[in-house]
Amino acid sequence: MSFSLKILGSSSAIPAFGRNHTSQALRVYNNIYLIDCGEGTQLQLRKYKVNQNKITAIFISHLHGDHFLGLFALISTMSLLGRSTPLSIYGPKGLSEIITVQLKYSQTILSYPVSFYETDPNNPTIIYDHQNITVTTIPLEHRIDCTGFLFREKTKPRRINPDILSETTFSSSQLKALKHGEDILDETGNIIYKNEAVTLPPRKCRSYAFCSDTRYMESLVPQLKDVDLLYHEATFLNKHAERAAKTYHSTAEQAAELAKKSQVGKLLLGHFSTRYQDLSPFIDESKHLFDNVELAIEGSEFEVAH
Amino acid sequence: MSFSLKILGSSSAIPAFGRNHTSQALRVYNNIYLIDCGEGTQLQLRKYKVNQNKITAIFISHLHGDHFLGLFALISTMSLLGRSTPLSIYGPKGLSEIITVQLKYSQTILSYPVSFYETDPNNPTIIYDHQNITVTTIPLEHRIDCTGFLFREKTKPRRINPDILSETTFSSSQLKALKHGEDILDETGNIIYKNEAVTLPPRKCRSYAFCSDTRYMESLVPQLKDVDLLYHEATFLNKHAERAAKTYHSTAEQAAELAKKSQVGKLLLGHFSTRYQDLSPFIDESKHLFDNVELAIEGSEFEVAH
Repeated sequence: MSFSLKILGSSSAIPAFGRNHTSQALRVYNNIYLIDCGEGTQLQLRKYKVNQNKITAIFISHLHGDHFLGLFALISTMSLLGRSTPLSIYGPKGLSEIITVQLKYSQTILSYPVSFYETDPNNPTIIYDHQNITVTTIPLEHRIDCTGFLFREKTKPRRINPDILSETTFSSSQLKALKHGEDILDETGNIIYKNEAVTLPPRKCRSYAFCSDTRYMESLVPQLKDVDLLYHEATFLNKHAERAAKTYHSTAEQAAELAKKSQVGKLLLGHFSTRYQDLSPFIDESKHLFDNVELAIEGSEFEVAH
Repeated sequence: MSFSLKILGSSSAIPAFGRNHTSQALRVYNNIYLIDCGEGTQLQLRKYKVNQNKITAIFISHLHGDHFLGLFALISTMSLLGRSTPLSIYGPKGLSEIITVQLKYSQTILSYPVSFYETDPNNPTIIYDHQNITVTTIPLEHRIDCTGFLFREKTKPRRINPDILSETTFSSSQLKALKHGEDILDETGNIIYKNEAVTLPPRKCRSYAFCSDTRYMESLVPQLKDVDLLYHEATFLNKHAERAAKTYHSTAEQAAELAKKSQVGKLLLGHFSTRYQDLSPFIDESKHLFDNVELAIEGSEFEVAH
């Protein structure tokens, strides 16, 4: 089942060089989760063929314009296109007020129900608990309240070994028990099938961590430990490290440092300052610390393997 | 001196076929007036080389998203780029609240002063009175409060006939008097130069009327009489006239009817519904009523001659 990320925007404060404001679409099975929604996101969704009807929840990291200004336009368009599926929106205090005041003055009654959930900027919190994934906030340190989001598949059942299955027949209750890691017993309590003998371990639980605007935070290591895919903002290169610190942003090297310490699978860099047209130095400055790094640029897609 | 209109967006509710949401830039002398500001306007300004530093005032017709959702992003970018020139924003009740709540939660302090002026949806009002032009609201009939805007050059001075000027010398006070239409008298009150003999009539006062979302309103004729350039929304073609009436929009033919009755110089059509990819029928349906008609599509520019 799909667990893949599509990048819709990679620019920081001002769009430049064909780079749009931050937005990403994470597909998990048949749902799409939209992460941040800068100006023009509805156009980027169309350009990169992301079906907006499949967006069930939107996660907004913070209320700087380049991370949320496309939201009202997107939810308006969803309504104009007759959406009926409910939509959940997670974001900082103030987001629901911003949207509500615009709905009020435009006298818009959306064609579908929207629910707002306020994120806590200080404590990691499970804000979304779905059949197959959870989403936990990652408190970040930016100039205003800001959280990242950790998407993690829930523990999966053990898998019946297909070699065994070809020779043996199990009842549905036996299959259920095996998938839950139990042994199969006879009526007197003796083991007929030891679980490990007929099952394989569950597929791994894939994970994606989105670290939006933040300064370098070594304290994130425990929460980010072993995630498969980490997006971390890298607004600046080393030569502007002072500017990064002053504006509560990070350098590519700092993102790589965090990826290394957290032993993540792959690192994605984004949110590039408009002062850089050529982005290749971002890779150069990361590689010596963490090799599996790529640029999170518009249209790129990253599938997390089982 | 320049009096020219550049089109930045021509699409109605949903952007489609490369058409953006409504926005136009009117250049009068060295000032640019931005009219409506749909999502992505800052990118359109850059694409069509309109210098945002020269925008001194922004006029928003109404609070449907496709007419104002790019405003916060634009004023934020102006600030990030260090603008210091004051900016005036004219729009309906609610606009200042929408912008203010976003400034509050993004903790943005703009680098320049912004002033909001609330438009009256019911009465034509002079809302802007500058050295060389005035802007008057045009109350429209849409689903929510909506006004158009009439930009009109102020009465200009009479011009000294260059043929006369080559043979005669006037003092600066005489020149001033002549430009104001006065005769030149000697000390005893006798006419030395009759004004008409040494001056030419003033250049004509150019005018542009922007009629945003509205149903057909014959009552606009007196206010639109003889304007040089009229933009009138034409969301629909004749075959969808019923839909136009229901949604308080107009057809191309209705826009042409109004242009004809108002004896305007040229008619521009825009705000096209996404149901039409080919726009040529809009011209076809207008021409039989009013010949000097063009599509107000992205990047097109219309200069109003003296």
